[in-house]
Amino acid sequence: MTLVEEYLQIRKYSEQICEPLQTEDYVVQPIVDVSPPKWHLGHTTWFFETFILKPFSVNYQVYNDEYNFVFNSYYETVGNRVIRTDRGNLSRPSVNEIYQYRAYVDEAMVKFLATTLTDEVKELLILGFNHEQQHQELLLTDIKYILGNNPLFPIYSKDRKEVLAIQKSEPGFINISEGVYEIGYDGADFSFDNELNRHKVYLHDFSISKTLVSNAEFIEFINAGGYENFNFWHAEGWDWVKNNNISAPMYWHLIDGKWFNYTLAGLLPIDLTAPVSHISYYEVYAFASWKGMRLPTEFEWEIAAEHFNWGERWEWTESAYLPYPGFSKAPGAIGEYNGKFMVNQKVLRGASIATPKNHSRITYRNFFHPHLRWQYTGIRLVK
Amino acid sequence: MTLVEEYLQIRKYSEQICEPLQTEDYVVQPIVDVSPPKWHLGHTTWFFETFILKPFSVNYQVYNDEYNFVFNSYYETVGNRVIRTDRGNLSRPSVNEIYQYRAYVDEAMVKFLATTLTDEVKELLILGFNHEQQHQELLLTDIKYILGNNPLFPIYSKDRKEVLAIQKSEPGFINISEGVYEIGYDGADFSFDNELNRHKVYLHDFSISKTLVSNAEFIEFINAGGYENFNFWHAEGWDWVKNNNISAPMYWHLIDGKWFNYTLAGLLPIDLTAPVSHISYYEVYAFASWKGMRLPTEFEWEIAAEHFNWGERWEWTESAYLPYPGFSKAPGAIGEYNGKFMVNQKVLRGASIATPKNHSRITYRNFFHPHLRWQYTGIRLVK
Amino acid sequence: MTLVEEYLQIRKYSEQICEPLQTEDYVVQPIVDVSPPKWHLGHTTWFFETFILKPFSVNYQVYNDEYNFVFNSYYETVGNRVIRTDRGNLSRPSVNEIYQYRAYVDEAMVKFLATTLTDEVKELLILGFNHEQQHQELLLTDIKYILGNNPLFPIYSKDRKEVLAIQKSEPGFINISEGVYEIGYDGADFSFDNELNRHKVYLHDFSISKTLVSNAEFIEFINAGGYENFNFWHAEGWDWVKNNNISAPMYWHLIDGKWFNYTLAGLLPIDLTAPVSHISYYEVYAFASWKGMRLPTEFEWEIAAEHFNWGERWEWTESAYLPYPGFSKAPGAIGEYNGKFMVNQKVLRGASIATPKNHSRITYRNFFHPHLRWQYTGIRLVK
Amino acid sequence: MTLVEEYLQIRKYSEQICEPLQTEDYVVQPIVDVSPPKWHLGHTTWFFETFILKPFSVNYQVYNDEYNFVFNSYYETVGNRVIRTDRGNLSRPSVNEIYQYRAYVDEAMVKFLATTLTDEVKELLILGFNHEQQHQELLLTDIKYILGNNPLFPIYSKDRKEVLAIQKSEPGFINISEGVYEIGYDGADFSFDNELNRHKVYLHDFSISKTLVSNAEFIEFINAGGYENFNFWHAEGWDWVKNNNISAPMYWHLIDGKWFNYTLAGLLPIDLTAPVSHISYYEVYAFASWKGMRLPTEFEWEIAAEHFNWGERWEWTESAYLPYPGFSKAPGAIGEYNGKFMVNQKVLRGASIATPKNHSRITYRNFFHPHLRWQYTGIRLVK
Repeated sequence: MTLVEEYLQIRKYSEQICEPLQTEDYVVQPIVDVSPPKWHLGHTTWFFETFILKPFSVNYQVYNDEYNFVFNSYYETVGNRVIRTDRGNLSRPSVNEIYQYRAYVDEAMVKFLATTLTDEVKELLILGFNHEQQHQELLLTDIKYILGNNPLFPIYSKDRKEVLAIQKSEPGFINISEGVYEIGYDGADFSFDNELNRHKVYLHDFSISKTLVSNAEFIEFINAGGYENFNFWHAEGWDWVKNNNISAPMYWHLIDGKWFNYTLAGLLPIDLTAPVSHISYYEVYAFASWKGMRLPTEFEWEIAAEHFNWGERWEWTESAYLPYPGFSKAPGAIGEYNGKFMVNQKVLRGASIATPKNHSRITYRNFFHPHLRWQYTGIRLVK
Repeated sequence: MTLVEEYLQIRKYSEQICEPLQTEDYVVQPIVDVSPPKWHLGHTTWFFETFILKPFSVNYQVYNDEYNFVFNSYYETVGNRVIRTDRGNLSRPSVNEIYQYRAYVDEAMVKFLATTLTDEVKELLILGFNHEQQHQELLLTDIKYILGNNPLFPIYSKDRKEVLAIQKSEPGFINISEGVYEIGYDGADFSFDNELNRHKVYLHDFSISKTLVSNAEFIEFINAGGYENFNFWHAEGWDWVKNNNISAPMYWHLIDGKWFNYTLAGLLPIDLTAPVSHISYYEVYAFASWKGMRLPTEFEWEIAAEHFNWGERWEWTESAYLPYPGFSKAPGAIGEYNGKFMVNQKVLRGASIATPKNHSRITYRNFFHPHLRWQYTGIRLVK
Repeated sequence: MTLVEEYLQIRKYSEQICEPLQTEDYVVQPIVDVSPPKWHLGHTTWFFETFILKPFSVNYQVYNDEYNFVFNSYYETVGNRVIRTDRGNLSRPSVNEIYQYRAYVDEAMVKFLATTLTDEVKELLILGFNHEQQHQELLLTDIKYILGNNPLFPIYSKDRKEVLAIQKSEPGFINISEGVYEIGYDGADFSFDNELNRHKVYLHDFSISKTLVSNAEFIEFINAGGYENFNFWHAEGWDWVKNNNISAPMYWHLIDGKWFNYTLAGLLPIDLTAPVSHISYYEVYAFASWKGMRLPTEFEWEIAAEHFNWGERWEWTESAYLPYPGFSKAPGAIGEYNGKFMVNQKVLRGASIATPKNHSRITYRNFFHPHLRWQYTGIRLVK
Repeated sequence: MTLVEEYLQIRKYSEQICEPLQTEDYVVQPIVDVSPPKWHLGHTTWFFETFILKPFSVNYQVYNDEYNFVFNSYYETVGNRVIRTDRGNLSRPSVNEIYQYRAYVDEAMVKFLATTLTDEVKELLILGFNHEQQHQELLLTDIKYILGNNPLFPIYSKDRKEVLAIQKSEPGFINISEGVYEIGYDGADFSFDNELNRHKVYLHDFSISKTLVSNAEFIEFINAGGYENFNFWHAEGWDWVKNNNISAPMYWHLIDGKWFNYTLAGLLPIDLTAPVSHISYYEVYAFASWKGMRLPTEFEWEIAAEHFNWGERWEWTESAYLPYPGFSKAPGAIGEYNGKFMVNQKVLRGASIATPKNHSRITYRNFFHPHLRWQYTGIRLVK
């Protein structure tokens, strides 16, 4: 596949994700962590315009100067921006205008990609691909939040049962022996800067589950009073439970004594055999404590990962999101990509049913604050 | 005009106000006081369905049971409701669905209005007309807020200069003599319960301005440092100025030393001769203090009102919003219309350029919290 | 009594109120509305120093320049000040240092009062007396809050049963006839600026209770579900009830099915015949609604007041705190005394068991925000 | 030294720290992280009473049942407690009462320690010693906060210059070679559960500074615009700087162009050669970025620590506070000591000039949230 073909395929997939939406669904921002779908469509376009077309494409005419203010996410280097909590307050640019903006930038990109590209540009391009793929995952989870927190529980698509991807795996544990292991990416393909610098770590003996914790197992935790017993929780996790009246994973509803959950295919009975999802790190930690087990570190996870089924859930690890030895930020705006978030977050490993194909690898490091639940997060235990 | 004709005319006008909107503009709620336009369209429809069709129209089939939850504004009697701050988080029902809901209820209403109506129903119907007209005014001011706080400053309509209605009035003061006057509505037509019980008040000599304070006069206040001098302000007004960095009326922008304001026709230079607008009670009070004058009470205003030009601004008064002697709430949900808001608000009198025709009278009492500015508020001075 | 004698008597009484305190009780500020007792002692001293000694007493040496920052309450004219919420964060000046400050200023005042005083100074002096008396009332209610919200319920004084002052009054209503009445102070003695400008008001027929609502009657309201029925409440009152889990007056505790309340003499069983107290305007309004009655306006209250027992409770009125006709602020800091608070507050009339002797009169206007309860507030009904 | 002697010595030192205080200084809580000194004195006493006397000392009479509610810090196992933000709202128990409580418990402890003690009791006793020593450090830093944020800048003690402990160290870096190292405590003496399980880690080559960053170096960072350049900061660090208007370490004041800082000996000119202190992790990270260096991990720090001067500052590390391999919580209330805080905090290593003698060791792990500054924190760089 040529770079142009890859560009067009990725760009098209973002729009395909939005096909089932009504115009109104593109606009709202019910919580600060969720962005309006139209913002994702605009922001990913702005990324190519700002970091490739403007600096490298001669004679490129910026589509609209005001869009830098509207679609900048967090790049301080690139100027002022709409504060994050205001994204859902902007009815304009309209959805149609944003699709026109996409078409304009795509046309300019296709022309530009037909020219001779430097290695620097190629690298930025691949970064842009991966950036848009990250937003594709967010698009889907943000859409789920927007629809799933509407009292009418609208269906995104009857065909998205969310569990099709789940493969049956053998139960049991994988034993890994104590010793020095290598961690991080050193291949020739793309990776983010936070995975680089393959380096040695010392691991102790551990046994890690082949399978993810299922909904049935999590219901046992609920029924055993897991949400009412402070002993299983971090102090900050317990505060979070109390302050937010948490008593089940996100999207779960107890209706006439039976558990349902909102899925992209609508409100459905819980599938007991599917891996539990939409849980915070705090809940994952409490569940593991109740089980008398623990979570893997991201290093343990990476070493054992070849034995796992792929692409079901993002799996919380016990590791904090920190730089690898020798990590250094790139200069300029691109350097704001990862490094400045390396505090107060936990690492997640794997990939979920919302992750675009080809946008995952064993060394990939995802990260979220410990209270967040709107991603397809899951639990893998270690003993 | 028959009741059916009046019904259809009023219902149509709500939709006419929304004609210039794009779908996205119907959805957002940038501050808690502003409701999404689609919510207004749904809520006014729900009002007729809930208070007329459901109790009085035999065999009426409720359009959608969930809508009671979505479109109830504050009627505790009628059950639970979406909390006010969440109105802008709901992408569904979509704009189209709400227009279908309107059409369904309108059809049922037209059929019902062709039957013999009791006096009770006629009264509720007239209340529904007036209720929808109140929301028409809010629709326009909410739309102005949604567009006017967007960094792209989109135009609602080039023909809405907002100042066409302003009539030139003679400067000068009207002198009213001390004595007992009568206040409140006692006509045969519709009025709200808060205007009823015409009663006597004792007024002292006062002189009230024939004209509203102009933008030019307000710029003098700004230039004289009015926003920087605590002496002119209430303590709570001064806190409001400091906490919100207020230095001009809402929608005003100082660009290269020249004042512009956002209007429904876009961002335009300030019209110096037009009455100042979009100011809080706190600002109005400070302006009057700076002038060495004061605001009228609502009683002074009502007695002098026949001499005023009509329909330019809602005019802040010094009066708190309190019940008239003998005021009593109607039983049931309708009784929640006015009485329960009679604390912590100030009375405004008059009508603004956003007020629907026939929806105003000299005894009409509007009311808002003292910090609010998104209505077309104005200043009339007394000395 | 000479001015010096009066000065010394008033100053001494502030210290007498504090006699039962331990040093620690002088320091804390559990809510923003309550000030630490040591702050009251310092602030009232600062008032005499700032408004009398500094401008009028030749050669007066300011005790400590920093105290202006520490003891200014809200006078913007007099410079910066510790923000109100920080008063309880200051351990210094210590209680001893503040008593020394009082002694220093008192000595200077006694010397100064022996000189020939201008009328301006005499007026300021009388204002200072009344100012300190206002703080004496707050001292006692703030002390009650500090002790009454401590889980150990310490006793202030066994002799302060709080109900000794309550006189038995005949039940029944006083009928007042429609007509023009005169309101406000026009005597030769001291009054605050907010009571001045005696003026005419028109009152309609009303009947006002001779007695205050008792604890027994209020318990009936509680038992009838008054705190669970939104119909009796203002919308903002209902929010207040829900957000703060209010289910009884402040200081009330239901212990083994029996009502107790914290008093200055400790935690005691409720006296059923005593007037209910420590209730907000919201509760008072809800109680009146439940009874099918209403509160008096401050004008109705003033006209009927000669028939009431005196000094039991501050009585909430339906009137908002607004300027009387012709009200004008004095120039300078003294002008900040009352006028700048004339928004968002309700008027209370009467005097309570915490009011110093000689610090009350029929025209006195007290004022608080509608949610506040730590004063000895009460209910008188009108029908 | 016998256990009784050690007990008495430690208990006495807490009181010695408070000797320079006035009663009022014991009471206030200016921010949630700071506790009133009298609370520390009571809480450490409650610890011995609750975990030793009540369960193990036959016939021990609890001093006051209410104190469990007042002095419990965070032990959910032991029942309800005063919420942390309310500690400064309690004037009672008074300082004298708390000293009496200490005397009562000390007397009971001395008697009890004269009996034959089981190993379990001995362990709890040593934990109680270490617990009180931790609070001694907090006592001093909390006192500094209480006095240092008072506008009068009261002096704690003229003899506490805070820099006497600072030893001159040779500048330069220590080079450590790549390899497997051992981390954690495995001695025979006391350590906290979070240091246990000595285990292997793999370290890469690094060079760590022999000295701490000085005030002079930190002033260079300020003068170079370090607080105004987002590039050096984490995104959350930058938000913290902006939201709190941070422009220098805590306690620093720029007076007439010269830097002063509040010390326990009062407001003094900055000592340029002393190690910088009272800085958050965010500032430390930004400083290191500006220098082109980084912070050590806690493992790097521990391996190099034998070469450092001791007891100057608690040194922020890059490590998140996480469990060591094999960590497990003790059952019951004692198990709440460390484990439940292992999220969202950073590890600090070393000891500060506020740390009691004998209460530190190379494996000791302290931890705080990244924005906190009131401890004697410092910076050691790695390259």
